Amino acid sequence: MIAKQKYLALSGGIGGAKLVLGLSHVLAPEQLSVVANTGDDFQHFGLTVCPDIDTLMYTLSGLGNKELGWGREDESWNFMAACTELGMDTWFRLGDRDLALHLYRTQRLADGAKLTQITAELCERLGIRVRVIPMSDMPAPTVVFTDRGELSFQEYFVRYRCSPEIRELEYGGMNAAAMSPLFEQSLHDPALQAVIICPSNPFLSIQPILSLPVVKQTVRKAGKPVIVISPVVAGEALKGPTVKIMQQLHMNSDVQAIAEFYHDIADGLIIDSKDSNHAEAITAMGIRVHSCNIVMHTLEDRIDLAREVLRFSEQLRTQHRQA
Amino acid sequence: MIAKQKYLALSGGIGGAKLVLGLSHVLAPEQLSVVANTGDDFQHFGLTVCPDIDTLMYTLSGLGNKELGWGREDESWNFMAACTELGMDTWFRLGDRDLALHLYRTQRLADGAKLTQITAELCERLGIRVRVIPMSDMPAPTVVFTDRGELSFQEYFVRYRCSPEIRELEYGGMNAAAMSPLFEQSLHDPALQAVIICPSNPFLSIQPILSLPVVKQTVRKAGKPVIVISPVVAGEALKGPTVKIMQQLHMNSDVQAIAEFYHDIADGLIIDSKDSNHAEAITAMGIRVHSCNIVMHTLEDRIDLAREVLRFSEQLRTQHRQA
Repeated sequence: MIAKQKYLALSGGIGGAKLVLGLSHVLAPEQLSVVANTGDDFQHFGLTVCPDIDTLMYTLSGLGNKELGWGREDESWNFMAACTELGMDTWFRLGDRDLALHLYRTQRLADGAKLTQITAELCERLGIRVRVIPMSDMPAPTVVFTDRGELSFQEYFVRYRCSPEIRELEYGGMNAAAMSPLFEQSLHDPALQAVIICPSNPFLSIQPILSLPVVKQTVRKAGKPVIVISPVVAGEALKGPTVKIMQQLHMNSDVQAIAEFYHDIADGLIIDSKDSNHAEAITAMGIRVHSCNIVMHTLEDRIDLAREVLRFSEQLRTQHRQA
Repeated sequence: MIAKQKYLALSGGIGGAKLVLGLSHVLAPEQLSVVANTGDDFQHFGLTVCPDIDTLMYTLSGLGNKELGWGREDESWNFMAACTELGMDTWFRLGDRDLALHLYRTQRLADGAKLTQITAELCERLGIRVRVIPMSDMPAPTVVFTDRGELSFQEYFVRYRCSPEIRELEYGGMNAAAMSPLFEQSLHDPALQAVIICPSNPFLSIQPILSLPVVKQTVRKAGKPVIVISPVVAGEALKGPTVKIMQQLHMNSDVQAIAEFYHDIADGLIIDSKDSNHAEAITAMGIRVHSCNIVMHTLEDRIDLAREVLRFSEQLRTQHRQA
């Protein structure tokens, strides 16, 4: 492992964090940066909650709830019980320990600190050496237009448990947010080997990042292989409503549709061995394909997939050089 | 008991709340209003914390921690544990359940609601029918000038556990806060029978209320007996640093000094039987004296003292009429 080789992962919450954890086991901390989707961020009880950043931090620090994939292990819910007594909203569950993080962030934001800086502070305090970078320091909320009207991401995702039918998604809100300086800087880093698009929900977690102004151009200009890990296996989502949303948006729900979705940015796509029948069609789209097991149940699965990603990126780089 | 007879208590936290609880047992809820000191209020982790209002609400709702006298019963401290992990300040302890109340208040303040309204909402949600009224809807912080410099109340009281030596106290901050409309209205209520100054710390809990503009004038104009319950018994404070502060402010630490402190507002002073040797001197100051047991260990003690207060107020009213 050459220490100066660097990798940049784009990630949402639970699914992406699994691969990021795997990558953190096969790379030195200074080799790995993760850009987190902040399109899910929202205000609750006056607190700024950043679910994807938090899931990444809890996963990487080992504090995370391994069963749920979000929130903290050994969590207690007495705050929520008291909220119920006071007739406060309880559809978004904030654990007693988890609250510390939201209060820290909210207070630092009120101090005028940027989300990138605050995230770095939290990572340092939690002993995380992998760099977690918010996609933007500005609010860039994902808005979900559904058969029940316009919903904020968390209303759609948590309050209504993804049951409304999605008609359209809007990224970034009214004012175009800029990609965070550290995100941009990471793409310009000459040591960057590859951009890794984690197996997160393409519509809810990755597209908010790629939709920020100049992100796609900057990724392309970086000239490094972009590797997507499919969030779909044999027509089923690894996690969450990916396939349901693909259907609602009138897409096929297979890895070919994933390839089409990312065709203007992806150099390579990692699909599950079960989907290798689609490899030829995807290759014909100009996207290199690598197939292996991509379902991550155990830590070993995460590490194995991380190794596959790095191997594939090395292949793509070699081809880049030869081309 | 004639339902329309009304009483207004001025109270700080723990000590005052004991008597208020007693009064709530011998009066119908609509007969009793309590004005709470808000000079202790402060911002912590971006939350607006009102310790005296909260102690009154927890005491009256039965949710309070009976041993500590503040905070909630069945409280857990996992939020604080997580704050410690994150290196956040932990000198002011906020319980997991208690947090709900502070978040509710902070959010409602951000909505533009007044503290009086928010307190009424919280009381309703907690099933409290006694009216708890903040002394002001505006911030009126007590500042403590000490041998260690200028301290906010909570820094003095909680962070440094009252150990700095007090040189001077300043009430209400830079801008004069107005008494809350409901406080003023309660004093103008023709059904008002007496104003009861609870056995709270005179310097830290009662003086912040009495120092608000026009409060003393409004109390005097109301023309109803003002009864003080001594916070000192036989030269010792019932609770907290009252006697220590009296010494630091070069006062004697006995009930006579309490009488002197309140001489321009008090019609009657209830002292402990142990202090009845001071009765004559206090009477000579033009303040009526009633002596009984004023130490409240049990709920029965609280109720007994409440009865003594009401009896004494009846006596004073009769004398008022005769005069």
